Amino acid sequence: MDMRPIGVFDSGLGGLTAVRSLWRILPEEDLIYFGDTARVPYGGRSRETILKYARQDVRFLRSFDLKAILIACGTVTTTSLSTLQSENDLPMVGVVEPTCRRAALVTKNKRVGMIATSASVRSGAYEAALHRLDPEIAVTCRACPLLVPLVEAGRFRPGDIVIETVVREYLEPLLETGVDTLILGCTHYPLLTGVIAGVCGPGVELVSAGEESAFELKRLLKAGGLRADENRRGETAFYVSDQADDFEHTASLFLQEDLRHSARRIDIEQY
Amino acid sequence: MDMRPIGVFDSGLGGLTAVRSLWRILPEEDLIYFGDTARVPYGGRSRETILKYARQDVRFLRSFDLKAILIACGTVTTTSLSTLQSENDLPMVGVVEPTCRRAALVTKNKRVGMIATSASVRSGAYEAALHRLDPEIAVTCRACPLLVPLVEAGRFRPGDIVIETVVREYLEPLLETGVDTLILGCTHYPLLTGVIAGVCGPGVELVSAGEESAFELKRLLKAGGLRADENRRGETAFYVSDQADDFEHTASLFLQEDLRHSARRIDIEQY
Repeated sequence: MDMRPIGVFDSGLGGLTAVRSLWRILPEEDLIYFGDTARVPYGGRSRETILKYARQDVRFLRSFDLKAILIACGTVTTTSLSTLQSENDLPMVGVVEPTCRRAALVTKNKRVGMIATSASVRSGAYEAALHRLDPEIAVTCRACPLLVPLVEAGRFRPGDIVIETVVREYLEPLLETGVDTLILGCTHYPLLTGVIAGVCGPGVELVSAGEESAFELKRLLKAGGLRADENRRGETAFYVSDQADDFEHTASLFLQEDLRHSARRIDIEQY
Repeated sequence: MDMRPIGVFDSGLGGLTAVRSLWRILPEEDLIYFGDTARVPYGGRSRETILKYARQDVRFLRSFDLKAILIACGTVTTTSLSTLQSENDLPMVGVVEPTCRRAALVTKNKRVGMIATSASVRSGAYEAALHRLDPEIAVTCRACPLLVPLVEAGRFRPGDIVIETVVREYLEPLLETGVDTLILGCTHYPLLTGVIAGVCGPGVELVSAGEESAFELKRLLKAGGLRADENRRGETAFYVSDQADDFEHTASLFLQEDLRHSARRIDIEQY
């Protein structure tokens, strides 16, 4: 039994969709969430800038005594996970491997689509992971730079012509290749499940990054004897790097339930 | 006569619309442009984060021997101009005052609208400047957080249902107040002139931030005897803080002409 908290971080607040999964899958664990809201979004930045930011995020989280870290950010996972793992002596789970394992499992025609930020697509990490699992899978990736700002502007509901037009344009080339499985490779995208499912139709299975990572973390903790007392209810502390004013409102959006926690602000550039 | 260059900076590449105005209005001047592409966008960040970034931007530009600085960023102008002016001993022009002077001049019914990023609207700087010029002017402001990402995704042309829907929704409450003048309070917005003019109709005059600042700078240089030899043709050097790969393409978008300059990359956090 290990009562130490799990660290979770993202470039902003999208990673809270992974917190939501963790609350359901590992309700007994304490969580410390950090959202780098002063420097969001990471998605359009260079590999080395992202690695630098991610190292600071990990250093801040490790100022607490953690037992594991979940990187709830597609962009950091695809560009920096292996470097961060080699530099840190604790279990670290990203969003790519678990998601790809799930996608490889559910695809029947071995045609998988993946949508994510520009940096995640550029990294080639999803293709590489899927091909390690099954070299016969054909992967089609598409960068969707407008989806994060649209979700953050609250435009993620079916029936909104703006989000529906943008999603349809992004997905059309993927659907034309006949994919039967679509990876939502960014932690903002679970909020778009309704719109994306509407555009894809019933023949395409959606696989969400954050959810699969939470299951992977559960397996890891169990294997290492690191789980907390299952009879308790864990607590979550929230930290951000820019003003915390709007936190409750925005966090409620991503967690899809009312939140009464506030966030504390830290200066990430000191880490 | 003063042959030293003028520094121009923005949180990203939107400020290049001001460079375009400077090329036309002060073609003899050398320019040094810095776009903080590693930390763009500033618009959603807190006042103190923006001031910190802006100080670093100015310190980098002042590593050159400059005669003046144009802040081609609505967000930095509204949150940090007076502080930066008090800390620096050279003429520094922002985008608010010159734009408001022009708006106060062209409005007939004294109802002026202003659209910009969240930080610019929150600052109240446009209202304050307009009211100093004419206390009778009624100002209606609206934050338009989606316009920058949409412009950067290339969605700024009339006929695109996405940008037209978003612009119409943003502008409707302003138009209902009967404004006859609309300030485009962000250097990305000149690219949206066609779409915005289409939504506003012929009864509303558009006033662009970057353009008026270039005229103001010309006046200041003239008054201070700081203009370069009018018979020469100035040169522009470009610097960015993130990868420079896409610079030519994106810069051509904002300058609305083919660009054969490349940008050099610098580490802004060292300044």
